[in-house]
Amino acid sequence: MEQAGTVVLSSGAVPRPVTSDPDAVKERIVRQIRSDLERIEVEIERQLTTSIPLISVVGRYIMGSGGKRLRPLLMVLAARLCGYKGKRDAALSVVFEFVHAATLLHDDVVDHAEVRRSKPAANTIWGNPAVVLIGDFLYSKAILMAVGHDKLRILEVLTDATTKMAEGEVLQLINSDNLEIDEGEYLEVVTRKTAVLISAACQIGGIFASGPPAHVQALRDYGYHLGIAFQLIDDTLDYTGDREELGKPVGNDIQEGKVTLPLIYALRHGDSSTTARLQEIFGAEEIPREDFIEARDLVVEAGGIDYTQRLAMEHISEAKEALTAFPPHPTRDLMVDIADYVVFRRA
Amino acid sequence: MEQAGTVVLSSGAVPRPVTSDPDAVKERIVRQIRSDLERIEVEIERQLTTSIPLISVVGRYIMGSGGKRLRPLLMVLAARLCGYKGKRDAALSVVFEFVHAATLLHDDVVDHAEVRRSKPAANTIWGNPAVVLIGDFLYSKAILMAVGHDKLRILEVLTDATTKMAEGEVLQLINSDNLEIDEGEYLEVVTRKTAVLISAACQIGGIFASGPPAHVQALRDYGYHLGIAFQLIDDTLDYTGDREELGKPVGNDIQEGKVTLPLIYALRHGDSSTTARLQEIFGAEEIPREDFIEARDLVVEAGGIDYTQRLAMEHISEAKEALTAFPPHPTRDLMVDIADYVVFRRA
Repeated sequence: MEQAGTVVLSSGAVPRPVTSDPDAVKERIVRQIRSDLERIEVEIERQLTTSIPLISVVGRYIMGSGGKRLRPLLMVLAARLCGYKGKRDAALSVVFEFVHAATLLHDDVVDHAEVRRSKPAANTIWGNPAVVLIGDFLYSKAILMAVGHDKLRILEVLTDATTKMAEGEVLQLINSDNLEIDEGEYLEVVTRKTAVLISAACQIGGIFASGPPAHVQALRDYGYHLGIAFQLIDDTLDYTGDREELGKPVGNDIQEGKVTLPLIYALRHGDSSTTARLQEIFGAEEIPREDFIEARDLVVEAGGIDYTQRLAMEHISEAKEALTAFPPHPTRDLMVDIADYVVFRRA
Repeated sequence: MEQAGTVVLSSGAVPRPVTSDPDAVKERIVRQIRSDLERIEVEIERQLTTSIPLISVVGRYIMGSGGKRLRPLLMVLAARLCGYKGKRDAALSVVFEFVHAATLLHDDVVDHAEVRRSKPAANTIWGNPAVVLIGDFLYSKAILMAVGHDKLRILEVLTDATTKMAEGEVLQLINSDNLEIDEGEYLEVVTRKTAVLISAACQIGGIFASGPPAHVQALRDYGYHLGIAFQLIDDTLDYTGDREELGKPVGNDIQEGKVTLPLIYALRHGDSSTTARLQEIFGAEEIPREDFIEARDLVVEAGGIDYTQRLAMEHISEAKEALTAFPPHPTRDLMVDIADYVVFRRA
């Protein structure tokens, strides 16, 4: 424990150090996923073609360039790791991008978002009614696509995930400006909001490929820990990233008063003047620019970013550990690289 | 054709006259469905119990007293008509009430509704964000419940229906103040918005009971025609019902500028001064009270209500005709009564 004694990680394991060359890892990933990404893009476009042009237009906008396609990609890789060699994986994989896009659209309405990925949020262009209803369409269409794959177990995992996600969204809304939320409650939201769908994508890849239960479980664990780490890093980026890298204004969460782990940590572990000042800033109706810069600095100084990053690295270690259930395989190595990339992306 | 020669019904058939005693029909229905309704209520309450109180509270509110439970009830009756005698029907039937409730919640957000069934609309109490997200939850939960019934065909029909519904909602939004919409386009919206789910409930009742294909198809047809008639009558009630009976202010659709069949008919078949005045009234940004009373009278005088009611009766005849695929059975008689009730309810 190189930091304050108050840092308690979920196990005694020392996180494995992230690879020394982020650019090399990124380059390796990009090179290996190119053809899968192309197949995924073709399938997304095919499924977005409807008789109602507005649906296609808004669908393309929310799923357009800039998305990482993390969920479809992980499903495809999970299936491959379980021995799948066919072409039907792409059609199932986009289910997860459609579900994800539906939640983005509804999130934008819920958050009154103005910007997403450096573009105006869809609701600012087409209005809340269209965005709500097209979110509903994308979600329904996703489930309909999944039904086409004729495996009840896939639908069980998928709809269990989407139901937990919906509960997580409600939980997040209830807690959105609750400075009393503790780390456990926050991680519950993160799990439901992000980890559950990524975990389901990996697990379903294994089920789709008819992998043995132990492998399906390992994929589920990999996705779960990767998902938590992904969201934790996302939350730190709001404090550290710059606007251009992130596609949304830095401090967006802060300005909206969203209480995420860096702040939760700082409120509990900062000195009393830090805590008092943070409560004052986040208790206000609006947070002026100079206040959120101050809040950001206070959170960083109190160790909130370090703590969150270390917790993310811990989960990445667990994600990689889960993959040891599989024998050595180029796809396994690629999934290890992706796990590493999650913690150093844009940071 | 007792009216203007311009009335063209979808077939030459003369609608069978509705039974002479509406109260007797209603009494017969109520008596026979009581125990099914009780089982349905118990199941709704059971499924609304979640670890997140806000979800249960809003769910109970939107699904609370006043709902007709038409969709669950029809599923239960359809299964019974196909010979089902067990108790698992209730659990599947509430899927349709959950989907319906989800669309009501999202509709209220989309329409900025203030009142539903004589109560404040949920969004006026809990705000749009909570209502959008709890709608998402109810929808996800519905599909999850349906997955539990282990029949892929049920999920196929259900998710095909919900996808068509979502498209219908978008279509309706696009056309919401389009005075140029014709009867065919309007009926497309009605089909997707209302008939598709009622039809799916009936069809799935048959599938659940392992009915033969001809019976499943007959149930699907019954639900389809019943659903169209149900929505057509709903649209006339906005012009004829009184506030207390309907649970929303009379003229709500009119005030929102919603273009439904009574108006579409009047615009096409009224004399030129009627058409001009209606275009003027509905073309305005806001419709003051005296104008919507005038619009209502113009639509009635131009025969818009009569035409819509007659078209609804035509569909009710077709719904009843579909049931002739079944041998005589008390449940068949009950479903005929329900079809009749749809056209004379509250009118």
